[in-house]
Amino acid sequence: MRISELSRRSGIPTPTIKYYLREGLLPPGRATAATQAEYDEGHLRRLRLVRALIGVRGLSVSATRDVLGAVAARAGELHQVLGLVLGARPVGDEAAPEDPPEGEVEALIGELGWNVSEHAPARAVLGETLETLRSLGAELDHASLLGYAELAERTAVLDLDQLDPRADPLEQAERALLLTVLLEPALLALRRLAQENESARRNT
Amino acid sequence: MRISELSRRSGIPTPTIKYYLREGLLPPGRATAATQAEYDEGHLRRLRLVRALIGVRGLSVSATRDVLGAVAARAGELHQVLGLVLGARPVGDEAAPEDPPEGEVEALIGELGWNVSEHAPARAVLGETLETLRSLGAELDHASLLGYAELAERTAVLDLDQLDPRADPLEQAERALLLTVLLEPALLALRRLAQENESARRNT
Repeated sequence: MRISELSRRSGIPTPTIKYYLREGLLPPGRATAATQAEYDEGHLRRLRLVRALIGVRGLSVSATRDVLGAVAARAGELHQVLGLVLGARPVGDEAAPEDPPEGEVEALIGELGWNVSEHAPARAVLGETLETLRSLGAELDHASLLGYAELAERTAVLDLDQLDPRADPLEQAERALLLTVLLEPALLALRRLAQENESARRNT
Repeated sequence: MRISELSRRSGIPTPTIKYYLREGLLPPGRATAATQAEYDEGHLRRLRLVRALIGVRGLSVSATRDVLGAVAARAGELHQVLGLVLGARPVGDEAAPEDPPEGEVEALIGELGWNVSEHAPARAVLGETLETLRSLGAELDHASLLGYAELAERTAVLDLDQLDPRADPLEQAERALLLTVLLEPALLALRRLAQENESARRNT
C-alpha cells in the first residue's frame, strides 16, 4: 500500500508517519519509484504498536526505539516482550527509584512464589502505596494484602488468556499493552460499582 | 486539646485548620477563653476526612462541605455514606457526562444483578474505556468482561471486610475513601506483577 493508505488505515497523519520513518521507528517501505514506496501489513502493525507506546504508555521517541529494538531481538519470547512493553518507563518519570525494593514487597512476592524481575517498576509503586496508607493510619493487614494478590493472580490469567501466542509478536505486544494499560480505568470502575453493590447488600 | 495539638496530631498546619473552621468544614471548638478553644477526638477525625476529601479525592472546599453535610445527615447508613464520599465529583471534572449510561454497561450491570446508582460516575468511565478499546481494535469479549466483573465482586468483599460497621461514621468514611482511592495504584501494581509471573509460567 502507499503511505496515504497506511495513514488512512492506521489513523495516523502522513507527516507523523514520515517523522517515524526518519526517526527509525518504522522500517522503510519497498521503493517503487524515486519518491514512492510500498508498505505492507507489517508496517501497519508496527505503526499501531508505536502509537500505543507513545500515546498510551507515554514513552519518548527514543525510549520507543529502544523498546522496539529489544522486542525485535526477542520475538517469539512473549514473556520477554511483555516485560519490555509494560516495564519501560514513561517520559518524565526520571524520579523512578533506583533503590532496592521495599522489604515488605520483597517478602510478599517471595511468599507468593511469583517470578518477576527485580527491576519491575510495579514493585516500587506497590511499596510506596503501602507506605502512604500506613502513614495515614489506614494500614492494610497482611491477610488482606495476600487476598488482593490472589485476586490479581486470577486477573492475570484472564489477561493472558486474551493473547494469542500464535499471533505476530508485534501484534501481541500491542494487544498486551492496550489490554493492560487501557483496561485499568475499566477495572477500577468495576471495583467501585461492585463496592456500591456489596455495600447495599450488607445494609439490607 | 488546643489547636496546636490538633495540628500536631493531624499533620495539618494551624493556619489551614483555621481556614477550615472559617469555611465551616470543621465545627468550632468549645471556647475556653476569648481567644482559645478546646478540640476533641471528633475534630481530629473530621479533619482527617476533610484532608482525604480535598487531598486524595481532589474535591473543592464547597464540594467537601456538601459531602460532609450529607454524611452527617445520613450517619449510620454506611451504604449511603460510602456512595457520598466515593461518588462526589472532583474539582475540574465538569465534563462528566450527564447522558444516560452506555447500553453495554447497563446490560452488564443488569446481567450481574448489581444494585448501583444510575448516576455512579464509574458507569461512564467503564463505558468510555470499553469504547476506546473497541476503537483501537482491542475489543473485550463479553465473557472476559463478565470474568473481570466477577473478580471485582470478590475484591469488593475484601474491601468492605476492612470497614468496621461499629466505628464512628466519619471514621468509616475516611477509611473507605483511603482504602478505595489510595489502594488503586497498589492493585494495578499487583496486577502487573501477576501478569509478569503468569507470562513466565506459561513460557516455561
